[in-house]
Amino acid sequence: MTHYKLTLAYDGTNFAGYQVQPHQRTVQGVLQKALGKMAKVPAIHVDGSGRTDSGVHALGQVISFDYPGMIPEESMLRAMNSLMPLDIEILKAEIVPADFHARYSAHGKRYLYRVARGRFTNPFNRLYTGHYPYPLDLDLIRAALPDVMGTHDFTSFAASGGVIENKVRTIYEATVREDPATNEVIFEFYGNGFLYNMVRILVATLLEIGSRRRPVHDFLRLYTVKDRQQARGTAPASGLYLKEVDYD
Amino acid sequence: MTHYKLTLAYDGTNFAGYQVQPHQRTVQGVLQKALGKMAKVPAIHVDGSGRTDSGVHALGQVISFDYPGMIPEESMLRAMNSLMPLDIEILKAEIVPADFHARYSAHGKRYLYRVARGRFTNPFNRLYTGHYPYPLDLDLIRAALPDVMGTHDFTSFAASGGVIENKVRTIYEATVREDPATNEVIFEFYGNGFLYNMVRILVATLLEIGSRRRPVHDFLRLYTVKDRQQARGTAPASGLYLKEVDYD
Repeated sequence: MTHYKLTLAYDGTNFAGYQVQPHQRTVQGVLQKALGKMAKVPAIHVDGSGRTDSGVHALGQVISFDYPGMIPEESMLRAMNSLMPLDIEILKAEIVPADFHARYSAHGKRYLYRVARGRFTNPFNRLYTGHYPYPLDLDLIRAALPDVMGTHDFTSFAASGGVIENKVRTIYEATVREDPATNEVIFEFYGNGFLYNMVRILVATLLEIGSRRRPVHDFLRLYTVKDRQQARGTAPASGLYLKEVDYD
Repeated sequence: MTHYKLTLAYDGTNFAGYQVQPHQRTVQGVLQKALGKMAKVPAIHVDGSGRTDSGVHALGQVISFDYPGMIPEESMLRAMNSLMPLDIEILKAEIVPADFHARYSAHGKRYLYRVARGRFTNPFNRLYTGHYPYPLDLDLIRAALPDVMGTHDFTSFAASGGVIENKVRTIYEATVREDPATNEVIFEFYGNGFLYNMVRILVATLLEIGSRRRPVHDFLRLYTVKDRQQARGTAPASGLYLKEVDYD
């Protein structure tokens, strides 16, 4: 029995999210089946760093699992890629200590959100960005970002459906930048954990601040009211990427 | 009756090519239906600068058509985009003289081909590049490109199925460059016309030259033998873009 950590990228468009669901094409399902094929068993259970929703992408999702037998890291990388569909790429395979757990060992996660700023939807980016054609004042967003950072109760920013009781999370870093080459506005969030739909709700709220539909320091009020109805919008899944998961 | 020229981009992935075909989703079909909807007729015939195959993209396809009535250019642009699916974007709408014809008025066309060089297929580029992971010597390709330019009989580079008798075409410009940021090799071809699958066969042949599977000046022999079997490969549709059509 050998314990592995795999880092992978996927295009979330044609998956019903990361987590296994009956009769649905999921990232976890595809991975478990491929590992089963390699080991000649029906499937091998894998633990992911966390779920991503349908349509959400990953640049650096991490999974861990026990494999019956020992395959060198480079062979595991090559074998898994040969079994992957074209919308999943295994970036790295590592043999790790048995107590490593993709979810519980993680210290932080980094999400990226790409907002396309063109007047109309760019056909080549429709699956890989959210589209926001309205005027935006990035200085207003920059003024609001310090309110996003720090430790807060994010109840107003969690979609119902989550079962987690404690909705306090810490955001270490929240940034926005413009990419003139692609005419995109790009958000990044680095934190110790994120609630269901949290990044997409944060982005929608920040875009409302940037277009003067909401006061700059509305986050402070939203933390207090603890009411999902007040934050309203959820930015589309297509713009969201799990960029990186941090371990020691 | 007003005569229009429209410039458009599309993601070719989910189209059965440009040209109308019964029971298939085609770019021309979607455009003709949308114009018909605007004019309250079943459909309005449009002429394209040329066909693109299934999976081939366009950054600047051009169409022309007669519209019953007069709509200002800006309104035509907005109205058409509001009727387009997300994988087509109208970039420009112009009112042009009645004798303008998207195909017959064109002087030249520019095609671009993106080759992804990563070891494995990048999930986010799988629909937008061809993948070629083998060693490539770009200097060999650069040495072969002057043979591609000029006026030649391209019979060896035309897929069967075309009905055109005269297979002499002129390539004014053929270039290759590396993009280190994306790890891609990018070809561009500018010429007065291209046969069926011609760019994809040119690219496949150039890649064989770059990987030493074919002599550098094999083009000169291939022009002479006039035999499609000798050029063999066809690079995947996913890497090909109709970049621009030139008029006066």
